[in-house]
Amino acid sequence: MLSISSRGQLMPASPIRKLVPFAEAAKEKGITVYHLNIGQPDIETPQSVLDAVRHSDFKILEYSHSAGNESYRRKLVRYYKAAGINIQHTDIVITTGGSEAILFAMMSCLDAGDEIIVPEPFYANYNGFAVAAGVKIIPVASYIKDGFALPPIAALEEKITNRTKAILICNPNNPTGYLYSREELETLKTIVKKHGLFLFSDEAYREFCYTGTHFSAMQLEGVDDHVILLDTISKRYSSCGARIGALITKNRQVLETALKFGQARLSPPAFGQIAGEAALDLPNDYFKATKAEYRLRRDTLVSRLNKIPGVFCPNPGGAFYAMASLPVDDSEKFCQWILESFSYEGQTVMMAPASGFYGTEGSGRQEVRFAYVLNVEAIHSAMDCLEKALEAYNSRV
Amino acid sequence: MLSISSRGQLMPASPIRKLVPFAEAAKEKGITVYHLNIGQPDIETPQSVLDAVRHSDFKILEYSHSAGNESYRRKLVRYYKAAGINIQHTDIVITTGGSEAILFAMMSCLDAGDEIIVPEPFYANYNGFAVAAGVKIIPVASYIKDGFALPPIAALEEKITNRTKAILICNPNNPTGYLYSREELETLKTIVKKHGLFLFSDEAYREFCYTGTHFSAMQLEGVDDHVILLDTISKRYSSCGARIGALITKNRQVLETALKFGQARLSPPAFGQIAGEAALDLPNDYFKATKAEYRLRRDTLVSRLNKIPGVFCPNPGGAFYAMASLPVDDSEKFCQWILESFSYEGQTVMMAPASGFYGTEGSGRQEVRFAYVLNVEAIHSAMDCLEKALEAYNSRV
Repeated sequence: MLSISSRGQLMPASPIRKLVPFAEAAKEKGITVYHLNIGQPDIETPQSVLDAVRHSDFKILEYSHSAGNESYRRKLVRYYKAAGINIQHTDIVITTGGSEAILFAMMSCLDAGDEIIVPEPFYANYNGFAVAAGVKIIPVASYIKDGFALPPIAALEEKITNRTKAILICNPNNPTGYLYSREELETLKTIVKKHGLFLFSDEAYREFCYTGTHFSAMQLEGVDDHVILLDTISKRYSSCGARIGALITKNRQVLETALKFGQARLSPPAFGQIAGEAALDLPNDYFKATKAEYRLRRDTLVSRLNKIPGVFCPNPGGAFYAMASLPVDDSEKFCQWILESFSYEGQTVMMAPASGFYGTEGSGRQEVRFAYVLNVEAIHSAMDCLEKALEAYNSRV
Repeated sequence: MLSISSRGQLMPASPIRKLVPFAEAAKEKGITVYHLNIGQPDIETPQSVLDAVRHSDFKILEYSHSAGNESYRRKLVRYYKAAGINIQHTDIVITTGGSEAILFAMMSCLDAGDEIIVPEPFYANYNGFAVAAGVKIIPVASYIKDGFALPPIAALEEKITNRTKAILICNPNNPTGYLYSREELETLKTIVKKHGLFLFSDEAYREFCYTGTHFSAMQLEGVDDHVILLDTISKRYSSCGARIGALITKNRQVLETALKFGQARLSPPAFGQIAGEAALDLPNDYFKATKAEYRLRRDTLVSRLNKIPGVFCPNPGGAFYAMASLPVDDSEKFCQWILESFSYEGQTVMMAPASGFYGTEGSGRQEVRFAYVLNVEAIHSAMDCLEKALEAYNSRV
């Protein structure tokens, strides 16, 4: 009788974590491991953001408002205005990371058994929140040959049932780096209006667009009640540890419901909110240098990958991820093998097998995700390794 | 078709929040409001705890381990050892506040529709987490006349069905201040062993015991697989805004399941963990002064309350709450009235009506909860107000 819950059993372990013991073993053998597997940026957190926390001078570390500090929310309104998004501070619930924004959106809009359509491949942790919320993710395929563009309207509509409550996109996308166009957003608008669905838009990587400009779901006209923006400062300001995100919507009922979930957990982290508020005072050109650095890394990674025989990597428009197909039988096996049985000049590479990002069993078997969170020199070394590793892997007996 | 979820509708709003507009209106009229309604301590956060955050010197605000920093978990082992609780650092998942520990415990051990028995009155936010997890709280009555002692074994067993998976206690208790005895814990042990149930023990207020010493559920022998400790630094170190708690259990399956929920949300807050770790270096006598202060407040509050005609307040053994029954028709009405229509020497009192802490409709109608988070002088002034208010309330036409 003393057993864990079914949902606990269903809860997926991190797909990347399985490889950690192999990376650790490689390091113990003295091998340098290039971590292109996770989205932890190596960019320094802005000094002024850390200083704001370090110079804070309150006496009691109190709960904040459950929706987050009003001063922070008011300042965020200006940030979004500059991004072409018109909201009020009362449209915002500050959350504990983007993670909590995703969970609150699912909990507020979907019941157990309800369905949410997500283009696949998708951010693996959506699975975890879906299990926590008892919600069913219905994947709809996007393809590497199309650069992971939005699936055609017919493919999306085909997935709609009477349990469908929402469509979830990540724009620009993790894991593909795909940047949705304004036209694709308009397509989604048509669908959510026609079928009475919510549109959850995870815009964690909004500031990192290299080819084209970002068009937010919040900029769509006439669907204010449908759109829920899920946001975070984690990647934007290299502040993953702050655990500060936001759920934003003009739908009052959804906002008030999310806030009830927020009240139960009392408040988002105090120090993280100070960091988030300080980040809004960064100079306008703050993202320029970071974006230039990421773009250089992307260009290096993608061009190196496409020069390797049998490898194909579409050029991602944003975020700091790229998906590539490799000439291997099974990328999970290959990602383990390269850590366990291979090194080149004392170095190897850790990648994320793509299967963990697909909801459809068997999809993405030849694909891997690269997070270009290392500098150009490291990317070159990692690509040297990968090139040699693919040769060696495919000439094994 | 565009509607919020049923669980979103079920999600309770904060029972205390309803009165906020009345408190704000009173303040606008120039009336001083004594806030005895919420558990936000006025005790200053230890300087060394805030300094640890202010003197932190990393360059990148990174994700931590999903279970929390290992250095912090290792140090916590020593804290618990000193409290008579023997655990290893791998028995701990650091959570985002005690709130997340409660949610992870429910999610990991119970499925939607499963039942958890909770002595009532209980911490109102348990309702929120239960709705989020789809879990049914089955209240079992404890009574003010008994000082809110654990209900008899028969009353507890009567509530057990084939959907019962756990018993949840808060020790010392919020909202009653009741400190469970070792004997009562042994009773719970008998029940959870006999019926194969989990025992969730929320020990947020462990350090605040005035009458008797604390006996933790983790100190029970032979039920390691049953016990899940839910903890937080919020009240202990007056660090509510840090949002740092812990889920602790020797049941490996539960621990690993909770960790999967932890991985989905990536990590607990970085700055809060620094604060929590620094708190463990406080001198051994740190709680002495705080406890002495709370005890003085308790003694003041309880003795003043019991001197008011028709008022009864059992002497709480711990935490910083006391429940009192008042000679009123309906404490919700009274708590609103005292803010809306009463003042004495320009002052009034905000209390929490007890109905929000009961799962049984209609219970606690004459009771209110006091949080003695204000100094003795303020408590005296608040009691002067209350005394006059009760006279005035009951002599209204």
